[in-house]
Amino acid sequence: MAEFVGSHGSPVRGPTRTAPPQLFERYRERLQEALRRAVPQGTPGIHSLLRYHLGWEDQNGSALSDGAHQGKALRPTLCLFACEALGGDWRNALPAAAALELAHNFSLIHDDIQDGDRERRHRPTVWSLWGQPKALWAGNAMRILADLAAASPSPCGAPAEAVARASQLLTQRYVEMIEGQYLDLSYEGRLDIAVEDYIYMVSHKTGALIRCAMELGAIMAGADDITVETFGGCGHLLGLAFQIKDDVLGIWGDTAVTGKAAGNDIWRRKKSFPVVYTFQHASGADRETLTRIYRANTLQAKDVERVLTIMEAAGARQYSEARAGEHASHSLASVQGLRLGPWAKDCLEEMVQFLVARDY
Amino acid sequence: MAEFVGSHGSPVRGPTRTAPPQLFERYRERLQEALRRAVPQGTPGIHSLLRYHLGWEDQNGSALSDGAHQGKALRPTLCLFACEALGGDWRNALPAAAALELAHNFSLIHDDIQDGDRERRHRPTVWSLWGQPKALWAGNAMRILADLAAASPSPCGAPAEAVARASQLLTQRYVEMIEGQYLDLSYEGRLDIAVEDYIYMVSHKTGALIRCAMELGAIMAGADDITVETFGGCGHLLGLAFQIKDDVLGIWGDTAVTGKAAGNDIWRRKKSFPVVYTFQHASGADRETLTRIYRANTLQAKDVERVLTIMEAAGARQYSEARAGEHASHSLASVQGLRLGPWAKDCLEEMVQFLVARDY
Repeated sequence: MAEFVGSHGSPVRGPTRTAPPQLFERYRERLQEALRRAVPQGTPGIHSLLRYHLGWEDQNGSALSDGAHQGKALRPTLCLFACEALGGDWRNALPAAAALELAHNFSLIHDDIQDGDRERRHRPTVWSLWGQPKALWAGNAMRILADLAAASPSPCGAPAEAVARASQLLTQRYVEMIEGQYLDLSYEGRLDIAVEDYIYMVSHKTGALIRCAMELGAIMAGADDITVETFGGCGHLLGLAFQIKDDVLGIWGDTAVTGKAAGNDIWRRKKSFPVVYTFQHASGADRETLTRIYRANTLQAKDVERVLTIMEAAGARQYSEARAGEHASHSLASVQGLRLGPWAKDCLEEMVQFLVARDY
Repeated sequence: MAEFVGSHGSPVRGPTRTAPPQLFERYRERLQEALRRAVPQGTPGIHSLLRYHLGWEDQNGSALSDGAHQGKALRPTLCLFACEALGGDWRNALPAAAALELAHNFSLIHDDIQDGDRERRHRPTVWSLWGQPKALWAGNAMRILADLAAASPSPCGAPAEAVARASQLLTQRYVEMIEGQYLDLSYEGRLDIAVEDYIYMVSHKTGALIRCAMELGAIMAGADDITVETFGGCGHLLGLAFQIKDDVLGIWGDTAVTGKAAGNDIWRRKKSFPVVYTFQHASGADRETLTRIYRANTLQAKDVERVLTIMEAAGARQYSEARAGEHASHSLASVQGLRLGPWAKDCLEEMVQFLVARDY
């Protein structure tokens, strides 16, 4: 695998940790406005669960003044960037961007139920506070609001056809996302998942919405089909890089930064990328040990230590980081033919660097 | 409350049980075709859970030859009828009708998870066979397929604007349905729900989609706004009648016919219409007994007997049947101004009769 070097010569992976790109800040205020327009404010009932989940309120409905419990807003930021990078008015992409963020959060609420996770973004999950049934419908409500946002007219009068096209594409990408979720569940209990099976699953589960972010931005910029497809392909590869890096952090991430226990995904016996790789590439004896541990009813600290040692012997972390870097590299290369301006190139490179170098 | 008599002089409620209206048969074949077009066939994975839930396959994916485990298809039948009643080509409404049936089944899959129900339509529920996480995403997949069906072009070339309008309205009605679901959950554990609170909740939870069925049919017939609204109002009232009758069957239904245990909703301590009515209208001592029983941790057969006796003393069954009849009556009256043809009038009356007289 080739060492990845960005188009301006700076390595994408490195020992120093990258600060979040300026792009996140660039769109934050207007994006927050769009999100707050998309979610009913000040009402009791189901929407208060959504406002809690989005980090705007505490569990009693009191407003939170900072963004400590809000997500990174990666998908909407990519969407708005894609629009601006192609010369569009990014404010036209605000409803689509809000829709992407709400759609992502729909999947998180249902994910937390599915996994029984009690904590997200450093506080209790919706189901752990309000119970599974209400969280189930809160997730459903979140997706409806996403759909309504996607179909709502753009603030600067983008053509209705572009809005309709973006809205339809979002629905199609949901299909892939949900198929990926199902596939992920189907992998549970199986120890014969190949790295490429995993890539296929993740390209649906995570990749669909990140791909969609780039596509929706391009559509709202009025781009032609080839450009929309090219941006989609870039997003697809970015999604793979993002998820593999996420998986690395799920095992070797710094507890203080990620808010998750060390070796968290090993404790949960999640079939994440480094685990799948290790199962495929560990030596015979190590593979037997792994199989025994992943088949046991309960796990102990020494088992987690053993898994980490086996992963190190197999070079799982190194391979995972390299693989994330490779997908990142390809995502940048995939838009070379579009002759983007220097601002857009710099921003995309900074974003890609961040996604594979981040520590949270 | 006035005794309900249909416009042709036949009583809507009566001692004899009504056979399903011919309308169900009229559209069945084409509707099944539309549904099978909307759900991927022959594929493994998540869609096999949907085909199971829809009564097309057993849990191993083998085709079922009869419709024994299929639903009544009330919503799509109303939608196709509404289109035909207004002079439209009902085949134009097939995608919308399929969407309504899939949307309804999305809510059933999630309902079964929420309530922990192990059986529906005389066989195991999706979650009880595949587990809650897969059922959660299967429900989500069902709703996506509903949305895709709603947005798909009509087979006979209805205007794209009508398809778009129907699709958007479905999304809006989802919002109401989900708010109703949430409200229903909020009522759990509360013993102070008034009959009108219940009606408000049910008009969202059940009424939204039945209203939508009539609206979508009217839209696909090319009806004007007033007619769409009038049909929607008719569906709204029909939904109330339908749900109250459902609640009556949930308590006094014949086990052999409904496939549910006698007094099922009392065992589950569901806040259904007759229960809410009884809480409001029982005498002081009876109310205290009811409160004790509904607050207890476990229920015994003698408690269920006691609740049934109290309900009888309060006239809950009689009132519920009369109330269902009243809403049914109003639903018929609500379209009088539209001067429908005799066929449409007869069909609607037969349908309304069936919904309040049915024993399943």
